[in-house]
Amino acid sequence: MKKLDKLYEGKAKVIYATIDPNLIIQDFKNDATAFNAQKKGQIEDKGKVNAQISAHLFERLKEASVPNHFVELLSDTSMLTKKVEIILIEVVVRNIAAGSLSKRLGYDEGVVLKKPLVEYYYKDDELGDPLINEDHVEELSICDKETLDKIKAMALKVNEILKPYFASVGMKLVDFKLEFGKTNDGELLLADEISPDTCRLWDSETNEKLDKDRFRRDLGKVEESYKEVLKRVEGKGYRVPSKE
Amino acid sequence: MKKLDKLYEGKAKVIYATIDPNLIIQDFKNDATAFNAQKKGQIEDKGKVNAQISAHLFERLKEASVPNHFVELLSDTSMLTKKVEIILIEVVVRNIAAGSLSKRLGYDEGVVLKKPLVEYYYKDDELGDPLINEDHVEELSICDKETLDKIKAMALKVNEILKPYFASVGMKLVDFKLEFGKTNDGELLLADEISPDTCRLWDSETNEKLDKDRFRRDLGKVEESYKEVLKRVEGKGYRVPSKE
Repeated sequence: MKKLDKLYEGKAKVIYATIDPNLIIQDFKNDATAFNAQKKGQIEDKGKVNAQISAHLFERLKEASVPNHFVELLSDTSMLTKKVEIILIEVVVRNIAAGSLSKRLGYDEGVVLKKPLVEYYYKDDELGDPLINEDHVEELSICDKETLDKIKAMALKVNEILKPYFASVGMKLVDFKLEFGKTNDGELLLADEISPDTCRLWDSETNEKLDKDRFRRDLGKVEESYKEVLKRVEGKGYRVPSKE
Repeated sequence: MKKLDKLYEGKAKVIYATIDPNLIIQDFKNDATAFNAQKKGQIEDKGKVNAQISAHLFERLKEASVPNHFVELLSDTSMLTKKVEIILIEVVVRNIAAGSLSKRLGYDEGVVLKKPLVEYYYKDDELGDPLINEDHVEELSICDKETLDKIKAMALKVNEILKPYFASVGMKLVDFKLEFGKTNDGELLLADEISPDTCRLWDSETNEKLDKDRFRRDLGKVEESYKEVLKRVEGKGYRVPSKE
């Protein structure tokens, strides 16, 4: 499957059309941004690492019956996926207080939440991706109530699968961001990526951060941490098949 | 009924105990604050005006079977109310985009919303009263889901009553903030006040602002606008009884 026209370039990926109108290629970039792109940089090999981590996790979720857009890896940084129209919310699931939740609720980072907590952010760079509630989703006609309920249930299911999975490879799944989309046929799929760019992952023993907070907060060892996550994920379960 | 110990002094009211442990006195102040008390001032006769507008509206809501804490006015600025423990959320109902909603969703001020929209803000001055969702309410143990559902239904009912009421006296009810509390017996009551401090009210014909935005935004004619709202509300319905 070859890349045809560039359809869209985002902060971390470039999307290409393919000869099949129902399939696209996501090419993962090394570019890193934070704080709504006010901070910019590059993380060596991030494209490769995130493509492969995402492939592992999407495959695992598929096995657990969470429908998602992943088809296969085409190269180190290129992922063939089903084409969806992205629903304009970022769905955040949190197990442990960190980042904006700590600020919003006045919780110290690291406080374990009573139960997984779901937030919706309106995907709008100009507005700074503001937190919104279900009434805002309806007002903005982002999606209908039935779809939003399904999205919330799927997001919580992803957490139920990935939280113990990451625990089994020595990491705490602190929080993560998901995006969803609908195919031409109206099927709701988990889309985008799942990687240290979109998850907070802490070492289970030391609480060392192994995610994009190392870049956001200038903690150093950014590349090493991303690679460490891949190493742990690769050590377990699905292996990326070699391409013929 | 006489004021006994001062129980609490807020930004706009002082709360006193009475000889009856189930009743308190709310004394309305002329002090005005905005932007989480970063802006401070005085509005002449605001205490009087807000006590009387609130009394009118609480009386009207009582007639329409919305349980609330209002008992009677004791003087121009003093209101006898049932004692409740305030639930730590500010419930905002919006009919027309203004203020923080305009900023959050990128809506021009004045855009009529598809249907009334409800937001919850965590009552915490140090955190700047952040927007929260139902999962945050649960995480913070602010109240249980059943109570929150009742609060939302009551808030929407208040809107159903007050929106046409204000329309009948020449004003658009743009948005408003409510607070709720529980009595010792566990009864859920609408509490606090309903006034130009807590509602956005625009003249139906001219869209002239007749509320606290005149103070917030230094628009002038602050006292006159508050008094205009009282005049219109007094012209219609419930009259404050003269005290023996």
